[in-house]
Amino acid sequence: MNLENYFISQFKSPYIGDDGAIIGDYVYSKDAFYENVHFKINWMSYYQIARKAMLVNISDAVAMNAKPKYALLSVAMPKTITKNNMRELAAGFKDVANEHNLEIIGGDTISNTKLDITVSIISKLNRKPLLRKGLKIGHLLAFTGKLGDSYKDLKKLLNNGFIHKNSKFVNIKLRDSFVFSSSRFLSAGMDISDGLFCDLDKLASTNNLGFKFNKQISKKVACSGEEYEMLISFSPRYKKTLIRRAKQNRVKINIFSKATRKKYINICKENHF
Amino acid sequence: MNLENYFISQFKSPYIGDDGAIIGDYVYSKDAFYENVHFKINWMSYYQIARKAMLVNISDAVAMNAKPKYALLSVAMPKTITKNNMRELAAGFKDVANEHNLEIIGGDTISNTKLDITVSIISKLNRKPLLRKGLKIGHLLAFTGKLGDSYKDLKKLLNNGFIHKNSKFVNIKLRDSFVFSSSRFLSAGMDISDGLFCDLDKLASTNNLGFKFNKQISKKVACSGEEYEMLISFSPRYKKTLIRRAKQNRVKINIFSKATRKKYINICKENHF
Repeated sequence: MNLENYFISQFKSPYIGDDGAIIGDYVYSKDAFYENVHFKINWMSYYQIARKAMLVNISDAVAMNAKPKYALLSVAMPKTITKNNMRELAAGFKDVANEHNLEIIGGDTISNTKLDITVSIISKLNRKPLLRKGLKIGHLLAFTGKLGDSYKDLKKLLNNGFIHKNSKFVNIKLRDSFVFSSSRFLSAGMDISDGLFCDLDKLASTNNLGFKFNKQISKKVACSGEEYEMLISFSPRYKKTLIRRAKQNRVKINIFSKATRKKYINICKENHF
Repeated sequence: MNLENYFISQFKSPYIGDDGAIIGDYVYSKDAFYENVHFKINWMSYYQIARKAMLVNISDAVAMNAKPKYALLSVAMPKTITKNNMRELAAGFKDVANEHNLEIIGGDTISNTKLDITVSIISKLNRKPLLRKGLKIGHLLAFTGKLGDSYKDLKKLLNNGFIHKNSKFVNIKLRDSFVFSSSRFLSAGMDISDGLFCDLDKLASTNNLGFKFNKQISKKVACSGEEYEMLISFSPRYKKTLIRRAKQNRVKINIFSKATRKKYINICKENHF
């Protein structure tokens, strides 16, 4: 068990274990976005940093079939930051808030050695929540979109290269319309933040099941974190329905395995730079 | 305007401006507690750090006349942290949660260069909220407890001295029972986090009023931040009632000024170490 998981294991709560905590009709989630942990300051503009900090958090809400409503920001800024940088940061936060129809209701700003952001999102459930628990033997597993580019672009950045401004590393595409329109056919779901194989590991342990793959997926693809695509499972009887809903929402879905009783082993290493 | 206030000025929202944001019956608040910004790692035990991170946040809820119900934590930890440190940290969070009858429902843990914590608190309003707005000409101003020790102890710590384990700097006493039992007699209120004179400045600008002092308060007392006492205002007709309620709740209250039309000037400098 790594140290972070050791810390989390100290807290026993029925609320902990999904992308967010459910209380009544609301989902509460919180993710950090820290300089030199999640990004380097020369990799992205301040505008892109604020956007990504918001979007990785909204991704958690979407992954639970909830619409983001309110956000609280904590922004720790280096003393060298300029007013121009701040206006860019604020614009990034506000633009994502407007695009997703959510309101920034407060937070905290402090002076620090680097730019460290945390965002808390309060979101409202659409009908029933989409959870990690619920996968059954024989259910199909799929992911949306294309995986692997986020890691490829991270490697470029680590080698001082450039990435396209539409790269998923700086410009996350959420699958909210697909999730909201198909959630009632899904037995389990979560967003792919640590990488497909790492996130499958969470589904496997939550549901005490493993997977039989129907295609080989390279480690370059399956160990790529920060993809923010959706990992979903569903009964085979909804296969056609889901393919249709995906098409209607212009999302590609890739059915890649089936849930079985066998034990799952995650072959990815942890990604940290 | 300092840089932090410049950043906050970019966000225009009716929710921003109090110790927390009110939505329906709930109050949402979030404060950071960062190493080398709010504390140095050798000043306090990990247990005390976690406790203080929680209590400064619960203080915001109490200041609005709300009972804390749920907390989300974001804990960024240095790679050198030990399992023992983590158990201490977790115990600090959990003990405060138990004492205040609130539940830790989730959050995020990451590996960082130093120990940086943010806490988001979801709290439920008792009857009507206590706001910064509401002060009227002729109303009396008071603070609870004793001010000045937090700054005195901070100076000791900065000079490599020792402070008592019951020092307010490490061991915050909240005034929740007094606030909850007397809120309906109060016209405005907030917690004293930046120092009496700084926080009076916020009351003054929110209400477009100034103050006439009935006693002199030294800068050592009035510029001491992180006191987490309550700053309250009330109509003179409730003076006796409030003195009685304070006594019942074993809280000292110090009536020190009266709201007037005159302009208020804050003579404290900003406190940062």
